[in-house]
Amino acid sequence: MSSSLEFEVSFLPEQTSVVARAGESLLDVANRGGVHINASCGGEGVCGRCMVELREGSLEAAPGLYLTEEDFKKNLRLACRAKCDGPATIFIPLESRGDASVFKKAAQADESVRADCLDPTVREADLTLEPPSHEDNLSDLDRVNNALALEGMSDLFVELSDLRELSGILRENGFKIKADVYHELPLMNGDSSPKGRVLGFVPQSGKERLYALAVDIGTTSVWARLVDLATGEALEPAGDLNGQISYGEDVISRIVYAERKDGTGLPTLQRQVAGTINGLLERLEEGFPGYRKRTRLIYVSGNTTMSHLFAGIPPKTIRLAPYVPPVASWPSVDARDLGLQVERGTVLQIFPSVSSYVGGDIVSGVLASGFYRRPELTLYIDVGTNGEIVVGNQDWMTCAACSAGPAFEGGGVKCGMRAAPGAIENFAYDPQKKTHILGVIGGGGPTGICGSGLINIVADLFKLGIVNKQGKYVEGSAPFLRPSEDGTEYLLAPKEESAGGNDVVLTEIDIDNLVRAKGAMYSGYQTLVEAVGLGMQDLEKVVIAGGFGRSLDIENAISIGLLPKLPLERFQYIGNASLSGATLAAMSGTMWKAANKIKSMMTNFELSETPGYMDKYMASQFIPHTDASLFE
Amino acid sequence: MSSSLEFEVSFLPEQTSVVARAGESLLDVANRGGVHINASCGGEGVCGRCMVELREGSLEAAPGLYLTEEDFKKNLRLACRAKCDGPATIFIPLESRGDASVFKKAAQADESVRADCLDPTVREADLTLEPPSHEDNLSDLDRVNNALALEGMSDLFVELSDLRELSGILRENGFKIKADVYHELPLMNGDSSPKGRVLGFVPQSGKERLYALAVDIGTTSVWARLVDLATGEALEPAGDLNGQISYGEDVISRIVYAERKDGTGLPTLQRQVAGTINGLLERLEEGFPGYRKRTRLIYVSGNTTMSHLFAGIPPKTIRLAPYVPPVASWPSVDARDLGLQVERGTVLQIFPSVSSYVGGDIVSGVLASGFYRRPELTLYIDVGTNGEIVVGNQDWMTCAACSAGPAFEGGGVKCGMRAAPGAIENFAYDPQKKTHILGVIGGGGPTGICGSGLINIVADLFKLGIVNKQGKYVEGSAPFLRPSEDGTEYLLAPKEESAGGNDVVLTEIDIDNLVRAKGAMYSGYQTLVEAVGLGMQDLEKVVIAGGFGRSLDIENAISIGLLPKLPLERFQYIGNASLSGATLAAMSGTMWKAANKIKSMMTNFELSETPGYMDKYMASQFIPHTDASLFE
Repeated sequence: MSSSLEFEVSFLPEQTSVVARAGESLLDVANRGGVHINASCGGEGVCGRCMVELREGSLEAAPGLYLTEEDFKKNLRLACRAKCDGPATIFIPLESRGDASVFKKAAQADESVRADCLDPTVREADLTLEPPSHEDNLSDLDRVNNALALEGMSDLFVELSDLRELSGILRENGFKIKADVYHELPLMNGDSSPKGRVLGFVPQSGKERLYALAVDIGTTSVWARLVDLATGEALEPAGDLNGQISYGEDVISRIVYAERKDGTGLPTLQRQVAGTINGLLERLEEGFPGYRKRTRLIYVSGNTTMSHLFAGIPPKTIRLAPYVPPVASWPSVDARDLGLQVERGTVLQIFPSVSSYVGGDIVSGVLASGFYRRPELTLYIDVGTNGEIVVGNQDWMTCAACSAGPAFEGGGVKCGMRAAPGAIENFAYDPQKKTHILGVIGGGGPTGICGSGLINIVADLFKLGIVNKQGKYVEGSAPFLRPSEDGTEYLLAPKEESAGGNDVVLTEIDIDNLVRAKGAMYSGYQTLVEAVGLGMQDLEKVVIAGGFGRSLDIENAISIGLLPKLPLERFQYIGNASLSGATLAAMSGTMWKAANKIKSMMTNFELSETPGYMDKYMASQFIPHTDASLFE
Repeated sequence: MSSSLEFEVSFLPEQTSVVARAGESLLDVANRGGVHINASCGGEGVCGRCMVELREGSLEAAPGLYLTEEDFKKNLRLACRAKCDGPATIFIPLESRGDASVFKKAAQADESVRADCLDPTVREADLTLEPPSHEDNLSDLDRVNNALALEGMSDLFVELSDLRELSGILRENGFKIKADVYHELPLMNGDSSPKGRVLGFVPQSGKERLYALAVDIGTTSVWARLVDLATGEALEPAGDLNGQISYGEDVISRIVYAERKDGTGLPTLQRQVAGTINGLLERLEEGFPGYRKRTRLIYVSGNTTMSHLFAGIPPKTIRLAPYVPPVASWPSVDARDLGLQVERGTVLQIFPSVSSYVGGDIVSGVLASGFYRRPELTLYIDVGTNGEIVVGNQDWMTCAACSAGPAFEGGGVKCGMRAAPGAIENFAYDPQKKTHILGVIGGGGPTGICGSGLINIVADLFKLGIVNKQGKYVEGSAPFLRPSEDGTEYLLAPKEESAGGNDVVLTEIDIDNLVRAKGAMYSGYQTLVEAVGLGMQDLEKVVIAGGFGRSLDIENAISIGLLPKLPLERFQYIGNASLSGATLAAMSGTMWKAANKIKSMMTNFELSETPGYMDKYMASQFIPHTDASLFE
């Protein structure tokens, strides 16, 4: 409180105090203090998600589009629009809070990941050297290089900082040391001269083992997993919310934030995600103390925007036609140059992207799924705001991204939310009793509806004729229907029963958004499959990746037209395939080579520019589809 | 003067004031303030060169080995032994000052340097790209890489920092840019895939041209020269005293200083030489404003110790048997990592060394001399405290270093000094008139004797029978002979005629030191020549490199037995061959490749370990030699 232009702002229920300057937006103050307030739009004032309650003190604010006079009288404010003008105490209601509880659980169940071979791109070379003599007074570096050449590793680059230590470490250890050697590609039989470099010289001890890290940077969440390179074992992963989430929920709002005129946007977002990863690395220390001293490799997968923001590269062109990413294939970088708290000489590789909207996370996922080396025609999908689709097999692959919109992640839905405690995930309507049962994540009263809940509700209501093909409620078909300003709505839980104190409803506009989203996905698959002269029935396998897929009811997803109508046994769910793929690369240079091959095999379709896509999209705007034969 | 433990110390005649802490050595205080005081031994108290006069105030000091009671009463002090204990005013006499005047002259005459071909390891690639479209929305980097591949440059590495700028620079310049590309080896016809890297992306302008720098780091002096890569012209060089000189005059005292227990030695020496180079780069700005923006390459030659100190690598093992240098072949480094004030993306290459005492300066010199590609049997020598010798031709080369001792540089000689104003360089004794004429650098009265002066004086006195074969004065042979505590001495100039106010004399001990030095060199040549079954008469060419050689009288050097007796036309003086070789490498990758070949062609002899060397050395301890047939 050094001047009258600074005030203390307290945030409840966390009881965090932050010093605010006069005129600063409350959202900026919260971000600075590490207090998370949802702001899907990145603070642009167009999503209304950052609603908070002014409990004491004052804020400069006024009612507006997302803040009614009534809200205002209840002391509600939009954090991104409210400016600090004095001390204040702010309560952040549950709906506006980020929920990281899912990450705080102990090691989540995750499919085991195991590469066919353990051949990491880093290896320890034991160098047991003859000490120099008058007859043999080669330089220390030449002595080391000769020994490495005998093991098939020549022409290695050594950093200045390692040269500075070499002489000392050789003599302190009686000329018996280890060199950690990095090759971009694995050593092959007969490959006598792979270029590579020495990442460091260390004493021979026998006890320590090399580790590698796999990191998946999602728009919403970030995961890191340690790999023991001695055994090839993938150790338990740690996850957290991406620290960037306070600056926008989707990639477009992050890109907009990165372009802030004052130049602080990109560095802030870079630091945020690096900070999130550092937090995870810190947590991994609990299980594997000191592992960072022997970690030499980090493989990072993420969508194209996340990769650019992490690398600190302006992502502007990603969101402007013709949607050109600055970088698709990444050079290796020193992990410390990106702000990660690891040892010097830790190589970081970012997965290659195919295009602005088919990123390294998809390349990594395809790697994990393994279909790129099998003959079966496969559809690979990752459902989210940007739905990514790959169709192909060992011989060819096509891919596309479609803007499904945020419905699958609870966005654009009146009571939508992410799959977090309080979200309605399951639903069953009893047509006899005319009642319904809600499945709420974490139990208790519901706060809202998550994406998979939305699908399950609409599928059930459609099956029972309460919702029709056009996605409209059939008047009088259920007692929970009532008129509202958004057309008819279905009352899932009255405010007395809800956790948030508000009615939880599903409006016709919400159903419209879901229909648009599922239609965008479906017409995407169709376009890719038909582009190669095949039909949907030719798909021999459907692989569903991503956090969303875990709770997806396949039959319900088919019944609303999100997934193609195929025998259930053709569907496979593979979880966080992006993290799994990064784990495989960490284990094996052969896998990393395969990832680069996958990237170069993929033919990208810009759906909006592809003839026929718009017709297919329009035809998909029914439940399940205009062309009923597709779902018979 | 913040506390009573700090005092102001003023240095005359420069009138520089430095704050000293109580107990600090006066030499350290002077060094900190940038005031140069000669200290051949690096402040170890064993050379007596750092004599200064206490004009006012006080110093904690006592008489000792190099400071007689009489000196002490005259207020003389050794700067390295005197500790500050109060304010003081110190006068630095001429003999104790560094003299940089030789470097302050405008462009010195220097042999022109021109490579056979201009094919530098860096080139500008004009990239005139098609802007992206919906049909062609490759990433920016892939677009650039494809264009580079069409010019035969593929698999180039691009730094993160350049990636961060790429997208912007492409669009600001309508997709017409230049890439500065570095290849360790030049592009050859048919060499389709040389590995290399992009050093930076710049707009196409047409006006600017690329430059490279050649730097020669000598123990005493440092030279830098700019090369215009558009024309292949070597521009004027700039030189200065190596800033390390205040920390010891020869490589051994520098190594000892680098090993200071408090860890400050090596970083200090690294900063000093980097600072000297930065000063030269600054001076080059006068002739070529802004050249650093377009300088992408620096080639540095220096002896093995200088290379290690500049790279910041502990040189300890260089001076300990079996004399192993930590590094002989150097990886390329970013010039800014060594503290040079140049642009990001300036590649610095250090010339490879053969051994601890045959360094990159010799490899560079051999490159400049060109004998490595001719059939004539050649002796290449660089005369100094460490005399380096190479014998060979296009088919083979042997090399050795011999510890000549400091006599050639004026060390170990009572009135010895470097070749600077005041040094006796020439001498002629008139046996008729029994007088002599002194040739003094810069004119005026003499201060002392430089190395070439020493040779000329001894040669003349030997010719006239005043000095005999054993290097002793012949009693009564000249009126300037007189007894002294160092045996008989020759009075060159009484104090009334000298510039320093002391008698300038040549003692028998001085002659002894010269005989030891020339004998060490001569027995070195003999050993190398005989090792391949040849004799001295087989030498078809003798190349003399280094600053010392310039003022060397070949006939006198032969007559005292420093150079072999061969027809005068076989001798060639090539000046600062180390700088010339670095200049060639800056112009041409082919030359750089040749430098590496020269390094690998050379067989190093450790003379002290070579059978027969000691016998030859003993036999050489006469004027001109025990075996008179060698000089008939």
